[in-house]
Amino acid sequence: MKKLINDVETMLSESLDGFTTAHADIVALGEGSQFVRRRTPKPGKVALISGGGSGHEPLHTGFVGHGMLDAACPGQVFTSPTPDQMLAAAQSVDTGAGVLFIVKNYSGDMMNFQMAAEMLDCDNETVVVNDDVAVENSTYTTGRRGVAGTLVVEKVLGAAAERGQSLRQLKQLGDAVNKATASMGVALTSCTVPAAGKPTFQIGADEMEMGVGIHGEPGRRRIKLASADDIAHELTGAILKDLLKAGQQVLLLVNGFGGTPMLELYLMVNAVHKVLAGHQVKVARHLTGSYVTSLEMAGCSVTVSALDEAQLALWDAPVHTAALRWGM
Amino acid sequence: MKKLINDVETMLSESLDGFTTAHADIVALGEGSQFVRRRTPKPGKVALISGGGSGHEPLHTGFVGHGMLDAACPGQVFTSPTPDQMLAAAQSVDTGAGVLFIVKNYSGDMMNFQMAAEMLDCDNETVVVNDDVAVENSTYTTGRRGVAGTLVVEKVLGAAAERGQSLRQLKQLGDAVNKATASMGVALTSCTVPAAGKPTFQIGADEMEMGVGIHGEPGRRRIKLASADDIAHELTGAILKDLLKAGQQVLLLVNGFGGTPMLELYLMVNAVHKVLAGHQVKVARHLTGSYVTSLEMAGCSVTVSALDEAQLALWDAPVHTAALRWGM
Repeated sequence: MKKLINDVETMLSESLDGFTTAHADIVALGEGSQFVRRRTPKPGKVALISGGGSGHEPLHTGFVGHGMLDAACPGQVFTSPTPDQMLAAAQSVDTGAGVLFIVKNYSGDMMNFQMAAEMLDCDNETVVVNDDVAVENSTYTTGRRGVAGTLVVEKVLGAAAERGQSLRQLKQLGDAVNKATASMGVALTSCTVPAAGKPTFQIGADEMEMGVGIHGEPGRRRIKLASADDIAHELTGAILKDLLKAGQQVLLLVNGFGGTPMLELYLMVNAVHKVLAGHQVKVARHLTGSYVTSLEMAGCSVTVSALDEAQLALWDAPVHTAALRWGM
Repeated sequence: MKKLINDVETMLSESLDGFTTAHADIVALGEGSQFVRRRTPKPGKVALISGGGSGHEPLHTGFVGHGMLDAACPGQVFTSPTPDQMLAAAQSVDTGAGVLFIVKNYSGDMMNFQMAAEMLDCDNETVVVNDDVAVENSTYTTGRRGVAGTLVVEKVLGAAAERGQSLRQLKQLGDAVNKATASMGVALTSCTVPAAGKPTFQIGADEMEMGVGIHGEPGRRRIKLASADDIAHELTGAILKDLLKAGQQVLLLVNGFGGTPMLELYLMVNAVHKVLAGHQVKVARHLTGSYVTSLEMAGCSVTVSALDEAQLALWDAPVHTAALRWGM
């Protein structure tokens, strides 16, 4: 295992120390390193909290700040954070308007966020993200997995919360954005979880995993390495089937899994555009980069989000986090 | 070779098409895909042009826009762009105040940018970046290599040009920032140039290349994989030796080479901080991420830039590019 670490046991806390040092103008580390919170809470605003296993950075800690999350709870690599972490985060950032949890659909996260919600003595709601159209049920999931579409849900909800929307409005908006968002990914290599010390899965030198999950979970099928155009056709085709009607305008997120260069990601943007154009789907907004990763896994996912005008305006609204920043 | 591509021959042009489509609000593709230019030139401003081999994205195309570059000329992967490209870019973005070329110190780039400068019939100057303290002379270089410090030079000069500094002032400022900037990197794995189809160098499962170049060029020595703290000590130590006096304040860029997760990069930030603190060096600004890459190589570089207050203010000034964006 080749990683820039000192000790598997302290890896996460050392990385969080570096993160909060580098972004001290935006975030602060919660007590006992249980969570990362927005440095300056905004009174009267619904607090948005997400979290999940580490190893997907910049998700979620990189999305804490103005116009996005109020706190993020990082678990160990690919391991759910505990209810205690979520509870501590909620108590730290709630300013009286209630707490909205944004949870990716994995059994561990779902159970722990639900426990935290039950223990919490303030008004709260939960939005579950399950945008991955690759498979129903998976290694760690009942139903669909939550993947890169989570970024879109967090950004749109973050802007809406900043504008003063109520907990009930945000819950409704979050469910709507999740429903309008679909993703699918492909892996060319495996990732290596530090505590395991070896690749999560074995894959041949000429193979790829079509429909892979963001923890290296199996997808739809293991096939021979295909061209970027063929990959774009299969990923986007599955998404279109799930989601879209011709003539729609969409947000397109081409997301790297951690080990794929920007040169290839932009080539995929070009390839996906050709497929979308063939279906009369217009791309109104773009985001390209490694935002929801699987450690150093090579590959990418395509996320399409059919946002309406009001939701696109929330996407465009100012954001100031470690990983997304515009308009301020 | 596992890459998201259709054809090695068309890889660069397809990627540039995707890039300019995704960022059409910021950039436009020059004639014949020879260069990427700022969408809206600013009359009366000195035009800043950089370029070099592709495979280091987001450098340089990702730094075209308000407050940074006016144009970037991408060569094929790890291959210098041609003088024709630079000339076409200069003629496209010069608005009469002259052209400043920012060139990383590699023999091919130096020769081609010099030819372009000689052919150009407008006032022009060149700033050469050679921040890599790892080795004197290298595979493609006489003297020191230009690496991630190029980003710092481009950002500071971009802000100064935006504020109306003259060509002579910018040349002087660029040389000063280059002199105040030092970098060194380490590779855990090789990269694979698409046209070569195989890894640039072989490296054992327990080895790393200390002082590696951004094309996988040899560094100081091939050694056993060390801890993050030991790596930070060696990289930062070499930089401090070259650059710093105790009590200085600096900008710290921890840069990923393309295959290293943010989790590890932030851990390195923490490790480098400890070393700098031991030398009474205060980090005034941070940038962390994969900005000057070597395709999918795993590893990172540390760049320290001892900027003065005026230069730090230029670093902080608004920038709106595909890869760096703040203050607007």
